[in-house]
Amino acid sequence: MVLLALGRRTNSSTSDTKESPVVKRKVLPVEYKAGDDFDFCSGASHSEGILQVFNEFRDCRLFTDVVISVQGREFPCHRAVLCACSSYFKAMFCNDHRESREMLVEINGIEAKAMEAFLNYVYTGRAKITTENVQFLFETSNLFQITTLRDACAKFLENQLDPCNCVGIQRFADAHALKQLASRCKNYALANFSEVSNHEEFLDLRIEELKDYIGREDLFVSKEEIVFEAVMKWVYHNVDQRRPMLNSLLQHVRLPLLHPNYFVQTVEGDELIQNAPECYQLLHEARRYHVLGNEMMSPRTRPRRY
Amino acid sequence: MVLLALGRRTNSSTSDTKESPVVKRKVLPVEYKAGDDFDFCSGASHSEGILQVFNEFRDCRLFTDVVISVQGREFPCHRAVLCACSSYFKAMFCNDHRESREMLVEINGIEAKAMEAFLNYVYTGRAKITTENVQFLFETSNLFQITTLRDACAKFLENQLDPCNCVGIQRFADAHALKQLASRCKNYALANFSEVSNHEEFLDLRIEELKDYIGREDLFVSKEEIVFEAVMKWVYHNVDQRRPMLNSLLQHVRLPLLHPNYFVQTVEGDELIQNAPECYQLLHEARRYHVLGNEMMSPRTRPRRY
Repeated sequence: MVLLALGRRTNSSTSDTKESPVVKRKVLPVEYKAGDDFDFCSGASHSEGILQVFNEFRDCRLFTDVVISVQGREFPCHRAVLCACSSYFKAMFCNDHRESREMLVEINGIEAKAMEAFLNYVYTGRAKITTENVQFLFETSNLFQITTLRDACAKFLENQLDPCNCVGIQRFADAHALKQLASRCKNYALANFSEVSNHEEFLDLRIEELKDYIGREDLFVSKEEIVFEAVMKWVYHNVDQRRPMLNSLLQHVRLPLLHPNYFVQTVEGDELIQNAPECYQLLHEARRYHVLGNEMMSPRTRPRRY
Repeated sequence: MVLLALGRRTNSSTSDTKESPVVKRKVLPVEYKAGDDFDFCSGASHSEGILQVFNEFRDCRLFTDVVISVQGREFPCHRAVLCACSSYFKAMFCNDHRESREMLVEINGIEAKAMEAFLNYVYTGRAKITTENVQFLFETSNLFQITTLRDACAKFLENQLDPCNCVGIQRFADAHALKQLASRCKNYALANFSEVSNHEEFLDLRIEELKDYIGREDLFVSKEEIVFEAVMKWVYHNVDQRRPMLNSLLQHVRLPLLHPNYFVQTVEGDELIQNAPECYQLLHEARRYHVLGNEMMSPRTRPRRY
């Protein structure tokens, strides 16, 4: 092996060179050059390259040491890769659980396509999040505790917010304790209440949820008629069950602020209201306001503040 | 499971909602929003995180499936990681070689510290290249066919070029067919010949190598005396063996271009030259040039061109 003169070299071999009389200059030893160390970093391509090969190994079952079975479909995997990404699998394979020694591991409660998408993410760091898969992708990454993918799904949902889905997304966010997403949904629904109330999801609100919307000062509506119509639409959607809730809902509708013409024709003309004597008190309050104006006050005579 | 209204939803459930007579607006179905797909990429942190965990697994022997033994030192590793980086190990572990089934694999011909540094690179993508380790790091990465690290070492050597080491590095480059590095070394030595000839490595040149330097038109020397002195120093370094080579070397020294004073005192005064009658012809040519000047010509009367 050639020895390169790169560092300090001790002149251990004292050569018996017969010095040329014509040459006055001495032969110089190698000098130490300080600060020469070089911290070489191959960059992300190194680890990305390795993961890519692991993904290829998965296809041809090279070094795979476990088979995950979901809905009868089998996914050969590398335990170490799963453990490196997921504390769920780390707990499964790194302890003395039964699974830690089994070659075939069955996972219930998720779909095969969810497992497939999840494994693709684990082995590539990439996932195509679509309106079709975001929900199961979230739930799978939540189950397996892959926070990056889980958060990406939550962000995707946030970007999807629309009057047609904000109620459902909020319910989803609440179910998974996604506070930020839930808060965004709520604000979105409050700001777009008029449109939200036109969509199917609105009709499936629980009464507490509906009350929370219509009871808020910061509910954005251009006129109180929108709130009244939303309530009536909700009640009529399941009229037999919801008829008894009418009075407690109308408590939150600012009937005095409706236009007197609208009040006389539409509210007082509604069959359901006509047959709900418990609401008469509220109707009376509205009529009084229409006559007396600001001389009378109630929580329902104050315009909403948004 | 909550179903989120994200894509097109077919209104399969035709609800028997009794429509409120006050509500003219229809309940809208969910609209499909095109172009919503999101290609989520976790970035390099995903694969880097996985590799980092693999490195931790190596320390605690988790999922390691082979032990590499070098000079009696044992390195537990993951075959898949080695294969993903190195075609050497891929050939070893992915074929039906004996090693592909053995838990302990002994590797000869390299040092344990080289293996250690190499594995650190494989498991982190990082390597501290120093003047002390660059040589074995190169040779190990060359053996295991990790081109990124190999190339980084070659680049490091190039940055280390110095009159004290360019000869040795060139020899190293030649031995490993590193054409670009070899070419840089050669140019460096030609451009810094005066200093290079003052260093130990120069004295160990083979005669063909020395002739190649002093025979070149593009050898950079401020005066031809430097070439003469380099030759004499090289011969005197191992005078018994090299004395017979003196004449063939002086053929490449442009003796006519030496200052007449220097020629008379130093060249003609040298004991070795005085006792080398085969060189008389060359001395005579120089003397004639000193008297006749440009009226005579030989390959040695032309100044070098650089």
